[in-house]
Amino acid sequence: MRMYDLIMKKRNGEKLSTEEIEYMIKEYTADHIPDYQMSAMMMAVYFQGMSAQETVALTMAMAHSGDMMNLSAVEGVKVDKHSTGGVGDKTSIALTPMVAACGVKIAKMSGRGLGHTGGTIDKLESFAGFTTGITEEHFIRQVNEIGVSIMGQTADIAPADKKLYALRDVTATVDNMSLIASSIMSKKLASGADAIVLDVKTGSGAFMKKEEDSFALAREMVTLGNMAGRKTIAVVSDMDQPLGRAVGNALEVEEAIATLQGEGPDDFMQLCMTLGAYMLVAGGAAADEEEAREKLEHVIADGSALKKLADFVQAQGGDSRAVYDTSLLPKADVVEEIMTPQEGYVSKIDCDEIGICSLILGGGRETKDSEIDLAVGLILHKKVGDQVKVGESLATIYANDPDKLAAAKERFLKAYHFTKQSVQKTELIKGIVRE
Amino acid sequence: MRMYDLIMKKRNGEKLSTEEIEYMIKEYTADHIPDYQMSAMMMAVYFQGMSAQETVALTMAMAHSGDMMNLSAVEGVKVDKHSTGGVGDKTSIALTPMVAACGVKIAKMSGRGLGHTGGTIDKLESFAGFTTGITEEHFIRQVNEIGVSIMGQTADIAPADKKLYALRDVTATVDNMSLIASSIMSKKLASGADAIVLDVKTGSGAFMKKEEDSFALAREMVTLGNMAGRKTIAVVSDMDQPLGRAVGNALEVEEAIATLQGEGPDDFMQLCMTLGAYMLVAGGAAADEEEAREKLEHVIADGSALKKLADFVQAQGGDSRAVYDTSLLPKADVVEEIMTPQEGYVSKIDCDEIGICSLILGGGRETKDSEIDLAVGLILHKKVGDQVKVGESLATIYANDPDKLAAAKERFLKAYHFTKQSVQKTELIKGIVRE
Repeated sequence: MRMYDLIMKKRNGEKLSTEEIEYMIKEYTADHIPDYQMSAMMMAVYFQGMSAQETVALTMAMAHSGDMMNLSAVEGVKVDKHSTGGVGDKTSIALTPMVAACGVKIAKMSGRGLGHTGGTIDKLESFAGFTTGITEEHFIRQVNEIGVSIMGQTADIAPADKKLYALRDVTATVDNMSLIASSIMSKKLASGADAIVLDVKTGSGAFMKKEEDSFALAREMVTLGNMAGRKTIAVVSDMDQPLGRAVGNALEVEEAIATLQGEGPDDFMQLCMTLGAYMLVAGGAAADEEEAREKLEHVIADGSALKKLADFVQAQGGDSRAVYDTSLLPKADVVEEIMTPQEGYVSKIDCDEIGICSLILGGGRETKDSEIDLAVGLILHKKVGDQVKVGESLATIYANDPDKLAAAKERFLKAYHFTKQSVQKTELIKGIVRE
Repeated sequence: MRMYDLIMKKRNGEKLSTEEIEYMIKEYTADHIPDYQMSAMMMAVYFQGMSAQETVALTMAMAHSGDMMNLSAVEGVKVDKHSTGGVGDKTSIALTPMVAACGVKIAKMSGRGLGHTGGTIDKLESFAGFTTGITEEHFIRQVNEIGVSIMGQTADIAPADKKLYALRDVTATVDNMSLIASSIMSKKLASGADAIVLDVKTGSGAFMKKEEDSFALAREMVTLGNMAGRKTIAVVSDMDQPLGRAVGNALEVEEAIATLQGEGPDDFMQLCMTLGAYMLVAGGAAADEEEAREKLEHVIADGSALKKLADFVQAQGGDSRAVYDTSLLPKADVVEEIMTPQEGYVSKIDCDEIGICSLILGGGRETKDSEIDLAVGLILHKKVGDQVKVGESLATIYANDPDKLAAAKERFLKAYHFTKQSVQKTELIKGIVRE
């Protein structure tokens, strides 16, 4: 088999066989196929697409390109959750303790990622001492003991995906549905969970801007998961404005804590309840969604979800006192209100721009070596559909540098759009994709 | 400017500016743009194409990526000739002395190339001692003195094309009309001639199998040449069967010599007269094609074209006695007839397959390090439209290895097709493309 022939085949619109895809991924991972051939292949895939069968073959080949996490030592059904990411997405921090408190085991691998705010791991590091650099033994023991653990993604989980994604990232071949789906799902499959609940974001702050694309991606991933024998379901949710009110690492942790105390923003609470319900049903902890929602409400009401967060933070070396006393979380030096420039209703928020405000403040990572300022960020007081009056604040901004504050503030004001007429509020859950 | 953005632009179907193409070629030649980005770009070009303006920009950028041959020290109009290549194409060997004998200066760079038979340089090395490894001074002096010289292509003529072609060759991005045209024309422009006559082959033994593609390539190259200020004309000629009767290096030289003696095959003579006529007109040695043809006939009739070949061979260190005594050319040990397997008319010859027979015998180069056996090859006695009777030979095969001979013979017989009905002979000249 020669990579040249495979590129030619794909370029000419023919389908690659499972054997050909396995060969390609195996040899590429082993550095036997050069980057310049693989990038030509990826561009050919961009134009010619991949069939369902090719996408499954690619996903499985990448999932098996390194270690397959063995979670057999964890009793019961293991459920994983993945979000395609967006602005203010602190879901894992609130959701995983909720689900674990209901008795479903969460053995989750997370990344840091580049972005406007940090990834889940960065956010959790707002708890002084918290680490995801734990051993596999620690990880499995903790899941068995307290029901939840989040581990940093090891280098040998789907190394083919890691290598291929880095190449696609610099050759303008990222945005192809099959390639995106197989990249996400190869890691999920290698991470070893029995069931996977996906949160596919849609809108101006999401990777997929159009709802139809988000649903297509959701369908592709659900098909891949189920074909690989993992029970998979996807929720398509709004990212046309930030999720909840907090954007920034420690601020988001604080909002997650508030949510576990029953005081979270409506949209964020709704998303946690929806994803959580599917996780409980998939994990066998509830017979149906209704029962699942009751259980989730119960663990919030009785404080056991909050306690689960504290146990989880402590088990991974973090200062769990901050769960009950958020003044112990990192705090910014400068706190200012951003007053509304006009009256009316918020008609639109450029979601990506709010993320960029957080990045400007120092809350995100521009290159993989950037250091994150966990304390900075924004709390939005007005979201789409909200009325604003003169003298009201749109948001509170948390900064450690006056220049960065000024720049972020200017950018923030451009991201908000107003009308005189009242505006319909956004629906958070756009739909569910099942097998 | 970032290569990533340029790939994205081309991928999305936008046009690249001249500045962007210049940047891309300059930085790629300087190894500042990695192969994996350029191969993704080339695949995007394969799918999205290039406009006339983009193709001109690419051609000029590659032409200027290294040395531009300065032929100003050669008096008069310098005419170059280029063939897109095929089986039995020994045109340069007969044509350049004919044209030079008529007073038009030929300062030509040639390559060896991979292929079924060698390139022009390999064929000329059938004259013992002949070399194209001459200095630029020698080259220019020789052109001034005897009117013709052929030099091996120096490393610094269009190095961007050399690098880019090598990449395209292994990433299935060769066959795009604009890229093919710019690759050929960048080298021609850098070689410094004032006028260029192109021989674009079409048919089963040509790079372009379809006549419409060959005409499209011809039009693209003629436009490029003229836009660059070089008088350019293209002849589209048949390569659906081998040109002339000889296939193989020394055998082709012998046929070229016979042609200069007025005893060449009709099709080959017709091609030399057609290309030669345009070269003479472009070079100012004839007022029109009719006058040019008369002059060309004259230099054959009076032996001056043959003498020009002898002078040319001698000037580059070759044994010019072989021009008058072809027994001094390399000879094969084994000579056998390939008898016709059936009666009727030759309906079709798989031209590429005849080339492969030469390759099997050892007459071509499979990798750039292969050594060529100059003596081996075939002389075809029957071409498309010819009648064949029992007991007649289709071809004479020249070999130095009985196993190779057997393999080539078997393959040869499969390449010939026959019918009972008489068959129309092929028209050699398909058309002319002018500005």
